[in-house]
Order: sequence, then structure tokens, then C-alpha cells
Amino acid sequence: MAEQAPNRVDRRKARTRAALVRAAQTCIAEGRTAVPILEITQLADVGMGSFYNHFETKEQLFQAAVEDALEAFGSTLDTLTEDIDDPAEVFAQSFRLTGRLHRKHPELSLVLLHNGLALASSGQGLAPRARRDIEAAVRAGRFIAVRDTDLALAVATGAALTLGRLLHDEPGRDDAAATDLVTEDLLRMFGVPAAEARALCQRPLPDPDTLPERDTAA
Amino acid sequence: MAEQAPNRVDRRKARTRAALVRAAQTCIAEGRTAVPILEITQLADVGMGSFYNHFETKEQLFQAAVEDALEAFGSTLDTLTEDIDDPAEVFAQSFRLTGRLHRKHPELSLVLLHNGLALASSGQGLAPRARRDIEAAVRAGRFIAVRDTDLALAVATGAALTLGRLLHDEPGRDDAAATDLVTEDLLRMFGVPAAEARALCQRPLPDPDTLPERDTAA
Repeated sequence: MAEQAPNRVDRRKARTRAALVRAAQTCIAEGRTAVPILEITQLADVGMGSFYNHFETKEQLFQAAVEDALEAFGSTLDTLTEDIDDPAEVFAQSFRLTGRLHRKHPELSLVLLHNGLALASSGQGLAPRARRDIEAAVRAGRFIAVRDTDLALAVATGAALTLGRLLHDEPGRDDAAATDLVTEDLLRMFGVPAAEARALCQRPLPDPDTLPERDTAA
Repeated sequence: MAEQAPNRVDRRKARTRAALVRAAQTCIAEGRTAVPILEITQLADVGMGSFYNHFETKEQLFQAAVEDALEAFGSTLDTLTEDIDDPAEVFAQSFRLTGRLHRKHPELSLVLLHNGLALASSGQGLAPRARRDIEAAVRAGRFIAVRDTDLALAVATGAALTLGRLLHDEPGRDDAAATDLVTEDLLRMFGVPAAEARALCQRPLPDPDTLPERDTAA
């Protein structure tokens, strides 16, 4: 019994933290970052004291909330691309699936856009995965026009963010077509021949929502 | 005398508004958007009551501050490019000068980055000018690979924002070299042949600060 107790406490602590993170994600998505901590704990259905067991400030919780959402989606992308050998196709598929996220999971998308520029240079979430894929494609001789990985990553993350903003601003626009066109343009910019870039962006895509053990907050 | 009075009052009102806008730009650049209105009026050296003669809320002032800064810079870019016939070169020069703004005028740059994604779809400032230049280059047969102006603009504004973020995050990086490389990549993506894109980005640039009647807040 004495050995079990810590695990039960740990599980409860993890549940409380997860509830706070989900509540924060909801607030961020609604643009209510000025919300008092008390309201977040009520939304999470946990006691006010529980908050300070996990976070020192509200900003710390918000940061955790955003990182959690992006890590979860990034991990989904990793799973969906693990059988693809061509790093250019890995980049293309991940970018195309990320572009489709905005309409499919508008709340998660708004979390991302609300913190976009800071996250673009974060060490977690989607940016480091995009960097990994771009570097692999450069090594494999697929992105022959990339002379500076940092700048290539900056353009790709910037395009991802403004594409998301555009898809929210223009609800009537075909999100899949817009995303695939931007992906194709990026591939060409990175040095993939035009016809091949087009072909890569016409491949069938898996559905991130059909993964059995998906663990995102969206 | 009666005819002169309104002009004098108008001039004073304009001065008060400009002082509030400058104070707000300083606060935004320092990330202090939670600053009380009283502190902004003290920084502007105007009475608290003056604030409400011009703005209903602090958010309205902040919005005006950002738009003012970008309009001023955009207008400078217009002046500097008015003698250039090739719309691809107009786009290139404006993008190259915008990239150099972050180090030269870090305060204005931070105003821009702090509100970046929302401004990217704004009807004022730099985005509509970039759209105008892209559309002109498409019409002139210079940007032959642009199939959707909205998406081309989204990628360009996204690249401009993440480039600015990168230049703040990496103070040791050569801002001119990084900016010109991104500009060259965008030109190639828009359909300008690689050698020509490179040549366009090596042209000498005018200095925005030498304009006699420059009216930015930076």
C-alpha cells in the first residue's frame, strides 16, 4: 500500500495539471489571456491552491499550454511520417497536415497563431521538427537551394503562420488547396523541381484524427 | 482672429494626438501593453482628459500607434521606390529595406513584430503595399510563378515577420546578408530566374533615414 500511494498521488497531480493546461488552452484560444487565475481553476474544476502546486504564474501555465498542444500535434506528425523515406516528402506532408489543422481544430490553431512568432523560434513543438526535416532534406540533396537552414526555417514557419491567419480571415477559402499551393511553392524555393514539387503535394494524406493513441488537447 | 482660432486648436490637438501615439509606441515596443492610461499620458506629457478627446480605449490608441508607425515607414518606401520601373525590383528593394529596419529601428521593429500576424492581414501599412507590388509584378510578367496573390502575400509577410524575429533573437547575425538571401529566395519562388533574383538583391540601396521629410516615430 505504501508503495502504491505515490503513484496514485502522481496520477492525480498529472490529472490536475492536465486539467489546468486544457483550461488555459481554452482561454488562450478565446483570446482571454487577461483572465484571472481563479477563473482558470474554476474552468479546470480544481482548487485555487492546486494551481500553485504546478505553476508559479499564469504566464508559466499559458506557456505550458501552448507547448503541450504543439508537442502533441508534432508527435502525431512524427508518427504519420515515420514510414516515409524521402525527407522532402516528410516536410511536405507535415506542412500540408499543419495547414489543414486550422479548420479542423480551430481552437488549437488559434493557440498556435496567438503565440506564433515566439513559438517560431522555440525549441519545442513544430519548429524544431521542421528544422530536422529541412536539415535531412538538405543532407539528402533534396533541398539543393537551401543555403541557410535558419532562414529556410524562418520562411517556412512564417508561411505556416500567415497561411493560418488567412484561413481564419477567409472562411470560404479552400484550406487544402491553399495549403498545398504554399507547400509546393516552399518546395520549389528549397530547390525541388517544379513538377516534382507539384506531385509531392498531390499525394494522398493520412488523417491525423484516426491515430489510435492521439493525445492532443484539441 | 476668429478664423485663426480653429487652426491653432487643430494644431494643438494634432500635437497632443501625436504625443499620445509616440508614448504608446514606446510602451508597445517595451512590451508594456498592460500599462495604465495615466502612465501613457504622463509619458506623453499631456493631461489625462486629453486622452479621451482622441481615443475611447487604450486598445484604440495602441492600434493607432502601430498603424501610424507602419504607414510612415510604408510611405518612406513609396518615396524611395518611385523612380524604379521594374515592379520586381520595387518589391525587392522594399523587402530589403524592411529587413534592415529591425536593427536600425529596433523600437519600431518590435511594434511591428508584437502585432505582426494581425497586421499581416491589415488594410494599412506594409501589407497592402506589398500586395500592390506583387500584383504589379504579376501583371508585368515578372512574377510568373505566382498563381494566387493572397498566398504569395501571405508567404512574403510571414517571411518578413519571422526574419525580424530571427534578427532580434540572433544579434550577431548579419542582418543585411540574411535579408537579401530571404528576398532572393522569395523572388525565385515568385518566378524570377535565379541569377536575376541574385542580381536584384545586390543592387545598392538608398538610406531611408536621409529622406528630408521623414515622419516616422522611430
